[in-house]
Amino acid sequence: MRNLLLTIRFDGTAYHGWQVQENGITVQQAFQDAWEKIFSARENVVGCSRTDSGVHADKYCCNVRTVTDMPCPDIVYAMNAVLPNDIAVLSCEETDWDFHARYSAVSKRYEYRIWNSPVKNPFISKYSLQVKYPLDASLMNKNASDFLGTHDFAAFCASGSSVADTVRTVTKAEVSRQGELVTFTVEANGFLYNMVRIMTGTLIDVSSGKIPDGSVPEIINSKCRERAGVTAKPHGLFLADVKYGKE
Amino acid sequence: MRNLLLTIRFDGTAYHGWQVQENGITVQQAFQDAWEKIFSARENVVGCSRTDSGVHADKYCCNVRTVTDMPCPDIVYAMNAVLPNDIAVLSCEETDWDFHARYSAVSKRYEYRIWNSPVKNPFISKYSLQVKYPLDASLMNKNASDFLGTHDFAAFCASGSSVADTVRTVTKAEVSRQGELVTFTVEANGFLYNMVRIMTGTLIDVSSGKIPDGSVPEIINSKCRERAGVTAKPHGLFLADVKYGKE
Repeated sequence: MRNLLLTIRFDGTAYHGWQVQENGITVQQAFQDAWEKIFSARENVVGCSRTDSGVHADKYCCNVRTVTDMPCPDIVYAMNAVLPNDIAVLSCEETDWDFHARYSAVSKRYEYRIWNSPVKNPFISKYSLQVKYPLDASLMNKNASDFLGTHDFAAFCASGSSVADTVRTVTKAEVSRQGELVTFTVEANGFLYNMVRIMTGTLIDVSSGKIPDGSVPEIINSKCRERAGVTAKPHGLFLADVKYGKE
Repeated sequence: MRNLLLTIRFDGTAYHGWQVQENGITVQQAFQDAWEKIFSARENVVGCSRTDSGVHADKYCCNVRTVTDMPCPDIVYAMNAVLPNDIAVLSCEETDWDFHARYSAVSKRYEYRIWNSPVKNPFISKYSLQVKYPLDASLMNKNASDFLGTHDFAAFCASGSSVADTVRTVTKAEVSRQGELVTFTVEANGFLYNMVRIMTGTLIDVSSGKIPDGSVPEIINSKCRERAGVTAKPHGLFLADVKYGKE
């Protein structure tokens, strides 16, 4: 038996997130279906994260414990031949037996992309949130820096979430602009349910003046979901990187 | 009555090209439908070019003669509100009564995009042709330069086309690489049916060795479609610019 770590990339538009569920097709299901076609075995593929319906991944990691002795490059080739066009396998490597794509992760990086123009862009409308009025990216960047550090992020967790510990450590939180594209990049040792999307909605509200400049620390301290901004739509969100061990 | 010049951008994936036809929805039809919803009038919108089914446009021009006195910025806003997400109006301006989006054009620029990697990219699979083996972009660029100038491009015109004059003047023909993306850019005073797609297929065949390096001039002189390469698939092709008058 081997434990294989696979990195994949997917356009989440057509999927109800990663995790197998009853009321819609998921990336995990599509992945396990492709695996079964090749290896005639139904394996449980462990993902690094649940992702919300419609969220994308530039780099997503998963692992599978398998009896196959197919060389890793051949697995990449075979999986890409069988998977639908919106899911690609980028790499495959053999890893320690104990490795777990979710529990072994030490940090994740997300990007939230905003198309900031009164005119929509047909080529990225599925990969960005359109905001028609001009955003102040430098103001958003200044307020984003208040997310840095170890905080109880309960105010940035979807209400109804049952997670016990809402303390997370944010190691990067930046907003930058390239032309009409405004990107919020955030890295942390873990994320709460909808955390990046609520952070993004909050920063947009700071730019519009709905939430006052400088109030992110107060919102964090309130631990109150209602104090933060709206949950930005899922289609602008990308899982950008997952780090393991001492990389 | 005014004659309005509108520039638009569209993702051609879902459309059977620009021109209204019976057996599928087209960009012109979607555009005229949106116009009719706003102005309660069915206008004939004149496009700068037929485009093939599945071809995209970063910038496409069309004109419409209309009685509406709605200010141009409001037309942009209203059309973008009504058009589907894969078609955007970028600008609208009043132009000379004689202006014709197709006949007034003095040059067009196309880009053909190739994703040159053994691993597919889910985010651009609808906007590029995947070629799995490594392409020699500098060899392709050298051979592309043989397209420059005024030639009879009959060998680069789909067989069955009924056009009388197959002479065109190519003013730019370049292949460049940015990472895994190889782009063929070509500008000319006009294009024959499938001309860019056949040029692209020919350059790919030069890179693979199927067509010898340096044989583009012979292929042009042959005026024989069979001597050129295959017609590259439509989904990698973008109309990138249209120029009018002395711009």
